[in-house]
Amino acid sequence: MSRLNRRPVGSTCPPPLRLEILAVPGLPEIAAGDALADLLCRAAAGSGLAFLDGDVLVVAQKVVSKAEGRLVELSSVEPSSFAASLAQAAGKDPRQVEVVLRESRRIVRMDAGVMVVETHHGFVCANAGVDSSNVPAGWVSLLPVDPDASARGLQRQILEKTGKRVAVLITDTFGRPWREGLTNVAIGAAGLRPLVDYRGQKDDQGHLLGATVIAAADELAAAAELVMGKTARRPAAIIRHYVWAEESGQAADLIRPREKDLFR
Amino acid sequence: MSRLNRRPVGSTCPPPLRLEILAVPGLPEIAAGDALADLLCRAAAGSGLAFLDGDVLVVAQKVVSKAEGRLVELSSVEPSSFAASLAQAAGKDPRQVEVVLRESRRIVRMDAGVMVVETHHGFVCANAGVDSSNVPAGWVSLLPVDPDASARGLQRQILEKTGKRVAVLITDTFGRPWREGLTNVAIGAAGLRPLVDYRGQKDDQGHLLGATVIAAADELAAAAELVMGKTARRPAAIIRHYVWAEESGQAADLIRPREKDLFR
Repeated sequence: MSRLNRRPVGSTCPPPLRLEILAVPGLPEIAAGDALADLLCRAAAGSGLAFLDGDVLVVAQKVVSKAEGRLVELSSVEPSSFAASLAQAAGKDPRQVEVVLRESRRIVRMDAGVMVVETHHGFVCANAGVDSSNVPAGWVSLLPVDPDASARGLQRQILEKTGKRVAVLITDTFGRPWREGLTNVAIGAAGLRPLVDYRGQKDDQGHLLGATVIAAADELAAAAELVMGKTARRPAAIIRHYVWAEESGQAADLIRPREKDLFR
Repeated sequence: MSRLNRRPVGSTCPPPLRLEILAVPGLPEIAAGDALADLLCRAAAGSGLAFLDGDVLVVAQKVVSKAEGRLVELSSVEPSSFAASLAQAAGKDPRQVEVVLRESRRIVRMDAGVMVVETHHGFVCANAGVDSSNVPAGWVSLLPVDPDASARGLQRQILEKTGKRVAVLITDTFGRPWREGLTNVAIGAAGLRPLVDYRGQKDDQGHLLGATVIAAADELAAAAELVMGKTARRPAAIIRHYVWAEESGQAADLIRPREKDLFR
């Protein structure tokens, strides 16, 4: 394991001059119980991308959810009267709304067919991440129960299989207030700190940086989306040459506590 | 100019398998009136990174603002009584609060020293982008007056100087609700469409994708930040091999109209 692939904790060493963002094509359709780490290693090797120490492996939530059996057949769902009433107002399937409510601990905002909720994990997103794209007709996918644990599991299994220590991010595309379009963000992380804290470091003029904390895990997720896309059967990517502190960080660190949040 | 560097409008061709994210070090300290495009071309060439057709050049707002003279010396600012009152409540410099108010058309949320405002451009961000990092003591920097125009200017000048047609993004790190940490986003764009619209395309299961629009310009900005950092004198990066539709898009397209925004 190369020591060069670690940014020492609290160090001011500069970011890498060059990153590679590499799609991992060739994953088969994933079903419940599939050994996802195995399949990822095989797909990477099949593309000539054997893992290196220090790689950041980015995996789309959808394949993790499929492997973990987090799919629900809508015909098995009995909507509550609240779900039915919401669905009628929004022109939605009441069974899908019922699934969204079950995945939510709080509704943050509702309007004109949009449900922005807080999931049981604490993520704030549309429809609690419940989604019918890239799943069989009549089914919806849910977010993994514990995406940080899913990421740690993939990291550990890849280490066992390949001897390589990678960081793992599990990602989904979320909307955000004020700006159009979705961006890919990290909902699970293992092996790196999701936040890079510049506080206490000096800028190029020698002044202390006040409030600068960068959500590096979300920037890595965003970078990976550029090669993954939505329709190309590419649910994984490798980011190579990123220098990271090996820490027990997790994507839950990216959730702003409710009491510090002006928009919840 | 390679036609391969264009994603035909509305086409379903897949994203690139591999991207390179390349820091452009070696820019000198920028002052008002400096020929930024010249300096960027020289810095890129000095790093062995002569521009290629289809490159996406990402430039931090700070150097654009400096070149455009968008710095204010606080000793020249007379705070209004409203600014003085806000500053006192928040423990801030009343002159800096005055500058924030001048750059704002609306305050979206205020609490505990945080001012989230809508700028005259329509961006919603903390402190209207007014910032004292990486500028001389006693001064603050403002966002460019028209970052899309700044991006178009850089694109045109680079084409004139090098014969290469690049896309240009001007970026700043913004916070967001619900999630900790800043991410780099596009506030100016030229030569590419900031949003990639998948609506009407089919997912891997053959279903039509409903609401998927990806803010690719923000994902490119985020990717670039990973090599730029905050303290390494690297205010620019090149993203190579990204395939884009040559369109007259602009970063203003990323601003959600107020009437469609549930959080403004």
